[in-house]
Amino acid sequence: MARNYFPEVKGKIKYGGPDSKDPLTFKWYRAKRKVGGKTMEEHLKFAVCYWHTFKGTGADPFGGGVYERPWDQADTPMGVAEDTVQAAFEFFKKLGVPYWCFHDRDIAPEGDSIRESAKNLDAIVQIAKKKQKETGVKLLWGTANVFSHARYVHGAGTNPDPLVFAHAAAQIRRAIDATITLGGRGYVFWGGREGYVSLINTNMKQEREQLAALLTMARDYGRKSGFKGTFFIEPKPKEPSTHQYDFDSATCLGFLTEFDLLDDFALNVEANHATLATHTFEHELLTASNAGKLGSLDINRGDMTVGWDTDQFAMDLKECTQAMLIILNQRGLRHGGLNFDAKVRRSSFDTVDLFHAHIGGMDTFARALLIADRMKRDGALSDFIKDRYKGYRSGIGRKILSGKTSLPALEAYATKNGEPEKISGRQEMLENILNDYVHSTKIV
Amino acid sequence: MARNYFPEVKGKIKYGGPDSKDPLTFKWYRAKRKVGGKTMEEHLKFAVCYWHTFKGTGADPFGGGVYERPWDQADTPMGVAEDTVQAAFEFFKKLGVPYWCFHDRDIAPEGDSIRESAKNLDAIVQIAKKKQKETGVKLLWGTANVFSHARYVHGAGTNPDPLVFAHAAAQIRRAIDATITLGGRGYVFWGGREGYVSLINTNMKQEREQLAALLTMARDYGRKSGFKGTFFIEPKPKEPSTHQYDFDSATCLGFLTEFDLLDDFALNVEANHATLATHTFEHELLTASNAGKLGSLDINRGDMTVGWDTDQFAMDLKECTQAMLIILNQRGLRHGGLNFDAKVRRSSFDTVDLFHAHIGGMDTFARALLIADRMKRDGALSDFIKDRYKGYRSGIGRKILSGKTSLPALEAYATKNGEPEKISGRQEMLENILNDYVHSTKIV
Amino acid sequence: MARNYFPEVKGKIKYGGPDSKDPLTFKWYRAKRKVGGKTMEEHLKFAVCYWHTFKGTGADPFGGGVYERPWDQADTPMGVAEDTVQAAFEFFKKLGVPYWCFHDRDIAPEGDSIRESAKNLDAIVQIAKKKQKETGVKLLWGTANVFSHARYVHGAGTNPDPLVFAHAAAQIRRAIDATITLGGRGYVFWGGREGYVSLINTNMKQEREQLAALLTMARDYGRKSGFKGTFFIEPKPKEPSTHQYDFDSATCLGFLTEFDLLDDFALNVEANHATLATHTFEHELLTASNAGKLGSLDINRGDMTVGWDTDQFAMDLKECTQAMLIILNQRGLRHGGLNFDAKVRRSSFDTVDLFHAHIGGMDTFARALLIADRMKRDGALSDFIKDRYKGYRSGIGRKILSGKTSLPALEAYATKNGEPEKISGRQEMLENILNDYVHSTKIV
Amino acid sequence: MARNYFPEVKGKIKYGGPDSKDPLTFKWYRAKRKVGGKTMEEHLKFAVCYWHTFKGTGADPFGGGVYERPWDQADTPMGVAEDTVQAAFEFFKKLGVPYWCFHDRDIAPEGDSIRESAKNLDAIVQIAKKKQKETGVKLLWGTANVFSHARYVHGAGTNPDPLVFAHAAAQIRRAIDATITLGGRGYVFWGGREGYVSLINTNMKQEREQLAALLTMARDYGRKSGFKGTFFIEPKPKEPSTHQYDFDSATCLGFLTEFDLLDDFALNVEANHATLATHTFEHELLTASNAGKLGSLDINRGDMTVGWDTDQFAMDLKECTQAMLIILNQRGLRHGGLNFDAKVRRSSFDTVDLFHAHIGGMDTFARALLIADRMKRDGALSDFIKDRYKGYRSGIGRKILSGKTSLPALEAYATKNGEPEKISGRQEMLENILNDYVHSTKIV
Repeated sequence: MARNYFPEVKGKIKYGGPDSKDPLTFKWYRAKRKVGGKTMEEHLKFAVCYWHTFKGTGADPFGGGVYERPWDQADTPMGVAEDTVQAAFEFFKKLGVPYWCFHDRDIAPEGDSIRESAKNLDAIVQIAKKKQKETGVKLLWGTANVFSHARYVHGAGTNPDPLVFAHAAAQIRRAIDATITLGGRGYVFWGGREGYVSLINTNMKQEREQLAALLTMARDYGRKSGFKGTFFIEPKPKEPSTHQYDFDSATCLGFLTEFDLLDDFALNVEANHATLATHTFEHELLTASNAGKLGSLDINRGDMTVGWDTDQFAMDLKECTQAMLIILNQRGLRHGGLNFDAKVRRSSFDTVDLFHAHIGGMDTFARALLIADRMKRDGALSDFIKDRYKGYRSGIGRKILSGKTSLPALEAYATKNGEPEKISGRQEMLENILNDYVHSTKIV
Repeated sequence: MARNYFPEVKGKIKYGGPDSKDPLTFKWYRAKRKVGGKTMEEHLKFAVCYWHTFKGTGADPFGGGVYERPWDQADTPMGVAEDTVQAAFEFFKKLGVPYWCFHDRDIAPEGDSIRESAKNLDAIVQIAKKKQKETGVKLLWGTANVFSHARYVHGAGTNPDPLVFAHAAAQIRRAIDATITLGGRGYVFWGGREGYVSLINTNMKQEREQLAALLTMARDYGRKSGFKGTFFIEPKPKEPSTHQYDFDSATCLGFLTEFDLLDDFALNVEANHATLATHTFEHELLTASNAGKLGSLDINRGDMTVGWDTDQFAMDLKECTQAMLIILNQRGLRHGGLNFDAKVRRSSFDTVDLFHAHIGGMDTFARALLIADRMKRDGALSDFIKDRYKGYRSGIGRKILSGKTSLPALEAYATKNGEPEKISGRQEMLENILNDYVHSTKIV
Repeated sequence: MARNYFPEVKGKIKYGGPDSKDPLTFKWYRAKRKVGGKTMEEHLKFAVCYWHTFKGTGADPFGGGVYERPWDQADTPMGVAEDTVQAAFEFFKKLGVPYWCFHDRDIAPEGDSIRESAKNLDAIVQIAKKKQKETGVKLLWGTANVFSHARYVHGAGTNPDPLVFAHAAAQIRRAIDATITLGGRGYVFWGGREGYVSLINTNMKQEREQLAALLTMARDYGRKSGFKGTFFIEPKPKEPSTHQYDFDSATCLGFLTEFDLLDDFALNVEANHATLATHTFEHELLTASNAGKLGSLDINRGDMTVGWDTDQFAMDLKECTQAMLIILNQRGLRHGGLNFDAKVRRSSFDTVDLFHAHIGGMDTFARALLIADRMKRDGALSDFIKDRYKGYRSGIGRKILSGKTSLPALEAYATKNGEPEKISGRQEMLENILNDYVHSTKIV
Repeated sequence: MARNYFPEVKGKIKYGGPDSKDPLTFKWYRAKRKVGGKTMEEHLKFAVCYWHTFKGTGADPFGGGVYERPWDQADTPMGVAEDTVQAAFEFFKKLGVPYWCFHDRDIAPEGDSIRESAKNLDAIVQIAKKKQKETGVKLLWGTANVFSHARYVHGAGTNPDPLVFAHAAAQIRRAIDATITLGGRGYVFWGGREGYVSLINTNMKQEREQLAALLTMARDYGRKSGFKGTFFIEPKPKEPSTHQYDFDSATCLGFLTEFDLLDDFALNVEANHATLATHTFEHELLTASNAGKLGSLDINRGDMTVGWDTDQFAMDLKECTQAMLIILNQRGLRHGGLNFDAKVRRSSFDTVDLFHAHIGGMDTFARALLIADRMKRDGALSDFIKDRYKGYRSGIGRKILSGKTSLPALEAYATKNGEPEKISGRQEMLENILNDYVHSTKIV
């Protein structure tokens, strides 16, 4: 009989409704509730991330680990790994999330050799597979941690030493295998060391080519191995490196196009990475979605008054509503979902804090879904926008978009039609409308 | 006989050498000095910008214009325009710069109709052409100001109203004509309003398509009209808009690729825009150069402690040296040059301040050229980098770059070769070396 | 009979309730509604600012004015000033705000001499006084614009030229007179030019002393003239200057202490200035309030993705709730209120946009008041905090705060009591609770 | 005979002069060289910091330690501590620095009890004392690390639990003892956890009072124990906390004044902390110096394109020159010096990189001293500034500063004297002059 790692939560977190005073109930999230023909669970493919939730220690640049997790007490690394997988699935089950996500080194310890590392990984994958079957929890995506080990200081795919590249390739190969074994819908690349600390000793041109070579090989290997899901690139502008080649959505789309990877790849867009790039989350999501490449989301939030990745849990209902609107407008996420790349604050020592955090995030997105669905049905904002650009659906506007006019012809048109009217963009009125939706007392 | 607008400077600014105590002499810039087979003048195709230098008023968001320029006293807008062109060429001549740059509305006032505006522009262009011939000063590039007029509040090419698009097209058509007439080597697009203030009322997807349509038509018109130079896009992340579609070099390269404009366009990279995008100038220049698309530079500097475009004169010798190294490494700028998109501080009321500012900028770049040339000859930094990546010039590294290996093959390679050596990136030593060059007492 | 400047709004904006679909009604603000013993109007002493709302032109650094206001059409500056005052009071009345705010140069044009400027100001003040009586609208505070005129380029009180200081003194004297005449409850200093652009030509030490001298004289003059209200300093870190001496709340409190001005001065804290200083609004408000010096608020919001003052209307319900909690906790604002230092976006051309914007801001704060009141009554968050620090209310904690212990005594205490327990800060749970309040469906 | 930890450097680093090609020689720093009556060594009281240089592991938020230091190999923590102290003094000696700095936990490991920790510390202090005597290297300042241990997650002095406060007090007591024993000239407080992560669970008002109580007790204890040096506060705005109470120089000065600590405390100003607060280093130094409270410097540099403390070695000659000018103008640092709070990049694996880094920093400051000295002698910039404010040294200006005039009197003065002249601030010319000094070829 499995050990109970979260005794403070007896069974599955229940739906208590908006007025519930029990902090360990959902106020808005109800998995089977139908919204626009699909259940909340289908809309909101929440995944718990293994790294922050089970492997996070609370260490920061000015202090070491501070958590004492019950699953972290075994004598051997593999013992810890086995206990952790038990704890993780207990957590998934009690929380009621449909998916999880991992890095290879989160679930299984690095061994003394590539072979041993692969063996460790395989052993845990087999246990996880059993737990998946047992619980019904599925894998959203897997990935390889090719940034923490000392050998990756100068980069993994972008390392000046081909031997390091080869080690990264070895890890990625096995992580793809693990993802396939566990039925993962996606495979993610986040390149924390794929950038530079200083240009003073860097060949940026070649490093980008190296990175493309790595992604190409991974794609080829994955496809050959039967992976039918989507490869995701996760943009981030900086940290730990000074500049990361996957700076933002636009940069990643340019990279994928340049190196002919667009067919197999989509973007995994993270809120906190958006703001680190001085964008809004909405901007990054929309940039990806407009290109048909919004594949998955890392849901969290940053703190705009500080300059590093805080990975806090998503709590801003307006921002989450904008995210859900974009997702509804593109009719969902094919292979992706909403991965909680978020961690409790260092001072949230207790395991129950993990529940508070995830419940808050799930409730925020559940309500955001309800609001976004209603806005979509009402044509709120979208009708205004549609009307605003109507001039491009016929006449000269249509000619402009279809390339059937010219500068001289347009000069003639402008001369004939004279000065355009000044039409208000009505930003304040629209902001009021959005606020009315987001703060409606009627979403029940 | 022409009026003397700058009596404080009698003739041409002279070269006084590093020890000169006269602030109105060059310490380092000597047009005809040979550096690596070309003259300084050929390396450093300095251009004075018309807008800041002759049309700048000192207005800022909290106060109006404060300068009283002698060329701004005529009774009519066209009178002012004519006086200004005289003053401008006097300044170019006294400063000894080979090039200038303009927006259509800098040199000629907007009229009551498209026709009148075109007539005004044409009249001034004829005068400028004569002055060019008279002085030998040439046009680096022209552009159209499609951001200041009230009709462009919601954008020019990206306006929701096609009639505004048509007005922008009309202006651009005539600005291209003017550029051709004046023998301009480039034509620039800077899209200050080509972005959004808020996504709440914006169709970002279509706006980018509109912008591409505008650039395509401009390219077609220019080529048809015999323009042989380069079209430039100038990246800027924000200001005046909240987000501009030409965010940074990477974004612009992606845009040009997506809309098939790469053959005719290159980038005009500005230092202050780089830092507003949280990049270094070096990063933006190198990103463009690596793609073969570094066409021209707007030389200035920003202030990293504030969040807006300060457009100060370039004064950082290390940063300018890095810029010159990139330019030397790509063997110069074909159609572009070094345009001073810089303005004196609001409190620098006097016309002599314009000389101090440009002299400082020219001296900084002249010395930067000398240092960069010496670094290039010495292989400083570059030899280190070349050596650092040598593993990719043969063996497994070469296979990686040429796509002739695979994840399993690399796993085997890594297994066989074991853990890589940890090789220092020597960043601090290289920084010392760079400092030794930049602060050398020997550059004479 | 007065001209109707806002025909799109027939009478006073009505309360329509949360479900109203009419954008020109209040959803939450009802002036006479009682909240905790006081009316909404008493809690929320809203003031409309004259500068943005009636004098704003839509100009920005890349384009000139774009609005065509009906009150801006008269032939003479004084004619415009008279029309504007009529329009302003029509707007105050229709909107239903109890207060207004002004700079001297907003309401009356600068004349050709100090005497004429004073005469202009006086004439308009007499009209405004009559309008105040007629409408019941009161003056929250007045101030002098000593930053826009060219003479203030190098500062007003901090100008290197004492003659400029004297001009500022002259203006401030008359602005204080006007404030007294109009029964203003406060007088504000915002020092847009009281800082430096560069330290290269600045004597920072003396400039701060000059500024203190100016404030001291103003205080003395005001008190002598019978002013019983509060003098406010408005912190702002930068813009237009590179560094302003009134950087943030903490800096201003230090300044007031250093120059012995604390008795007569309090702070006027602005949301957007807080974020420009990389603080939260809550932090700045609380810093002032903890010192007993939170006097008044400039309510607006900034955009954290850009680096300048955007002065948008307050729309973030959570942020406004935090502000209202601090105000309730200090039992209101004695002489201050909530001044809308906010402007419609440049593209919001129409006068009706002014109504949309203010209605949105008022509704947001009205709801924030309701939520904050409920949180206060429930002890939400505050009970947790009180409990968290309970150790300081007795025993060793009490000794620490009262200075009755020492390092050796504490070492002995720690040795005896051993390692402290790790107690979770429960940040995520508290964030959920705050979200539950802010997004409650029950606030009716 | 002591083990040789740095075999790559045979003896003391030599002065090679500006043209030396040996990267392990000084180009500018010569300890005994006289500059304005004092030796370089006396001007530039360089200290090597123990934490980064000997205890730094290269860990960052995305990867663990990567260095393998020869002094880190012993079997027990005390064994490592003993080896490290040997290595450290070998390094100090070979580098030729006169001072060092430490945290208690850098030099001796935390024990199982307060008593054991104190014992460990004392043992190492005795060794260090011997090494100091042996080598002539002195202690600049000591401090206690009350931020890394898990008990300090919620703060040390600002912890909600008085028992944690007591533990901090215990540590600080012993760190002060150690500092006295080792003849330290200063004792530093840097409060990495003395702030908040979120206001949601924080009593900011009381926390600031707690912090003041701690500093007061430390001051009292130190003075009672015979400490004659200066207590320093080191401002930092954020990281690891979201907001630190010692935000910047102005905030710290306000705090010291408020809690009556100004007599015994001065500031230890760090370059990277200045820029994290969106200030320049020069601004922070000058703010402290103007108040007579610039006590010591942490010399390093940040990276303005990222938002965290990078603690790179100082390399910007202009910035360092400005720092040295301020130091010369206040006639030196009484108890403080120039502490290298800087670390080599994570990828600089080798011990020789520690030499490159420190040599670069020392050379930069040595040259900065030479330039600053010359500028001071020439009255460069300062004469201009003096002249610029001359109006305040007599007449109305003098009256303003001495409080002998009033608003009405100044109005009369302004009326009589009319509009002031617009005098250029000559910023560009002064920047050129500064550049001429900083890049002079003549500083030999």
